[in-house]
Amino acid sequence: MKMKKEEKGVTAASGFSAAGIHCGLKKTGKKDLALIYSSRPAAAAGVFTQNRFQAAPVIVTRRHIASGSARAIVCNSGNANACSGEQGLYDAKRMAEVAAEKLGLQAEEVLVASTGVIGSNLPMEKIEAGIEKAAGLLSPDGWRDAAEAILTTDLVAKNAAYSLEIGGKMVTAGGIAKGSGMICPNMATMLSFVTTDCAITPDLLQRALRQTVDYSYNLITVDGDTSTNDMALVLANGMAQNPLIAEENDDFRRFVELLQQVNTELAQKIVRDGEGASKFLEVTVKNAPSYADGKKIALGILNSNLVKTAFFGEDANWGRIISAIGQTDADFDPERVDIFLGDLQVARNGCGLPFSEERAKEILAERDISIMVDLHLGKEKVTAWGSDLSYEYVRINASYRS
Amino acid sequence: MKMKKEEKGVTAASGFSAAGIHCGLKKTGKKDLALIYSSRPAAAAGVFTQNRFQAAPVIVTRRHIASGSARAIVCNSGNANACSGEQGLYDAKRMAEVAAEKLGLQAEEVLVASTGVIGSNLPMEKIEAGIEKAAGLLSPDGWRDAAEAILTTDLVAKNAAYSLEIGGKMVTAGGIAKGSGMICPNMATMLSFVTTDCAITPDLLQRALRQTVDYSYNLITVDGDTSTNDMALVLANGMAQNPLIAEENDDFRRFVELLQQVNTELAQKIVRDGEGASKFLEVTVKNAPSYADGKKIALGILNSNLVKTAFFGEDANWGRIISAIGQTDADFDPERVDIFLGDLQVARNGCGLPFSEERAKEILAERDISIMVDLHLGKEKVTAWGSDLSYEYVRINASYRS
Repeated sequence: MKMKKEEKGVTAASGFSAAGIHCGLKKTGKKDLALIYSSRPAAAAGVFTQNRFQAAPVIVTRRHIASGSARAIVCNSGNANACSGEQGLYDAKRMAEVAAEKLGLQAEEVLVASTGVIGSNLPMEKIEAGIEKAAGLLSPDGWRDAAEAILTTDLVAKNAAYSLEIGGKMVTAGGIAKGSGMICPNMATMLSFVTTDCAITPDLLQRALRQTVDYSYNLITVDGDTSTNDMALVLANGMAQNPLIAEENDDFRRFVELLQQVNTELAQKIVRDGEGASKFLEVTVKNAPSYADGKKIALGILNSNLVKTAFFGEDANWGRIISAIGQTDADFDPERVDIFLGDLQVARNGCGLPFSEERAKEILAERDISIMVDLHLGKEKVTAWGSDLSYEYVRINASYRS
Repeated sequence: MKMKKEEKGVTAASGFSAAGIHCGLKKTGKKDLALIYSSRPAAAAGVFTQNRFQAAPVIVTRRHIASGSARAIVCNSGNANACSGEQGLYDAKRMAEVAAEKLGLQAEEVLVASTGVIGSNLPMEKIEAGIEKAAGLLSPDGWRDAAEAILTTDLVAKNAAYSLEIGGKMVTAGGIAKGSGMICPNMATMLSFVTTDCAITPDLLQRALRQTVDYSYNLITVDGDTSTNDMALVLANGMAQNPLIAEENDDFRRFVELLQQVNTELAQKIVRDGEGASKFLEVTVKNAPSYADGKKIALGILNSNLVKTAFFGEDANWGRIISAIGQTDADFDPERVDIFLGDLQVARNGCGLPFSEERAKEILAERDISIMVDLHLGKEKVTAWGSDLSYEYVRINASYRS
């Protein structure tokens, strides 16, 4: 049986409800507080930013998730509660406590996230009133509002949900994500909250999350910057009543497939909504000696400002791709590298080929552009995604705080 | 006796002449071929790009400089002769041969450099005619023309020259440089040619060059990208008649001081002329546990697109500086980091401080901005330089090839 796409987000799975409201953090009046809730106890797993400055909500959520279970996620946008000192840590804990009170849970069952400007303390009166309001609005229909409430510079809300039969039952996973700048491998500024009704142990849920993050959020880049606040969380409440997944069996592999689908779709949506992005770039590195080498090259290309501006300008400047490959420490042989833009080969054995500028123009005029690099050195294949670098990226980031 | 600034460039030292002409590579009619010549045999040293794709002139110049001596440098702009196959290698050798014929030298005494678009072959008829023409125009007054002829997207020519008494004689060193994009540590797209009349052995010249490059060109960044063509060359013809420097004595240290002054000035001029740069950013990391840690942090800050766009927007978004520090693998303690913009402290112990936005605005409105990071963890201090990321950077790089 095939995977089925669901027209829903973080409440697609049984037993989950959500809400998103404006509590007063965003001057624009847009939604800035999201709440996600499971009506049953759920296994919980998380992957967190690698940045050495860890925001207060990251510290608190790491502690709360250590037990392997949780029932709610509360997230504000507009203020990252990062580099915010003892007060920041107190406030992050308080967010969990207030949500727990309103939902009849223990504070440790609530996971906390924040995104926005670094270095200010949260206006806790607004947040506390907001959590109370959101708790009263929790509904299976709240997924759209929750998706909006976690956005910052994002232009569109990001949802994805799929179902797949696992162990004779239909299991659903759905999620929301935010992120449009500071996007780079190893959990750059992005948040992703996925819920599922799969029955799975916390250990295997963590394993599945770790693995799918590596092949989704860790293969995208907008600007090579990471942040203090990133996290990917997943809650699994077992309401699909499939046989509990407690080992790496076929059911586990099917669940990974399902979770991968959701996370990959959310990751690609983040890139498509990259700050100022006018192009969606897909880089595939073929015949790499190892996955790690292929990944370094794919992300090296996607992180080069010179490559990114050339694609913004629709300029077939493949020399910059060569140069970006050459500055990685990946294992490859410069004299074997072939490069294709779409179906057009522009370099063979590391040297330029004469090619039709007209055909190149057509390919580069598209919004979605594939770049393929064949290393002719092994058997591994890696695909990663990124965006171009536009005037709009500069405009957005030159005035973010103001 | 103090160092004396000379109002000259690459011909400031005795016995050197230069020329710069238009041979037909640049459609604009601007100068695109430079020749530098020593009337006496000279010790020669070079430092080259770390990019795995090495352009043909890099390969040829590495071979020619292996002997430790050279008497001329020929450089074209407008075409990088990189990723240009066997033909490219043949052409780079041919450039040296033609220059040698015209100057009565061996081909091995001529060093070759190219800068410009990657992946096309050189129009050798134009180059050969250009070399002949330039050879006829060699003059001590040719330094301005030579400086212009090596530029690509640079807006201004870059010269620096100084004199210092060494071993009882006045020794002069002067040079030219190009580079305005693809500028990053480890010899990003930049060329630097320095000449000196110092008497010094090739070994010690190489040592002095390596050391001064580390503290000049390797401490600047424009966009984090490196190139296939970079090199820093120095020729030393001994005409100052100082006692030959053949060991690391006081004279050697004075020569390093002189060469450092020239290379640091050229490096800073490259950053000031960075593509689209509207700001000159100086980042000092104090009290680092090691020089390497301090350098990683200084360059990590200067390479962050988010930091760069914030400075372009004159936005005191120090959270991005924190985040850029946090994503390096340098050794530091997040809870001890202090940050200053100019004389204004904006973060203490890794947390935000209330500060005067008015004073911040004044500081950020300047063209030259100092950022100071105090790690409170050791005794090393590193200063590096970079530029902001502007609309103009995107404009220049979106249409470079066209």
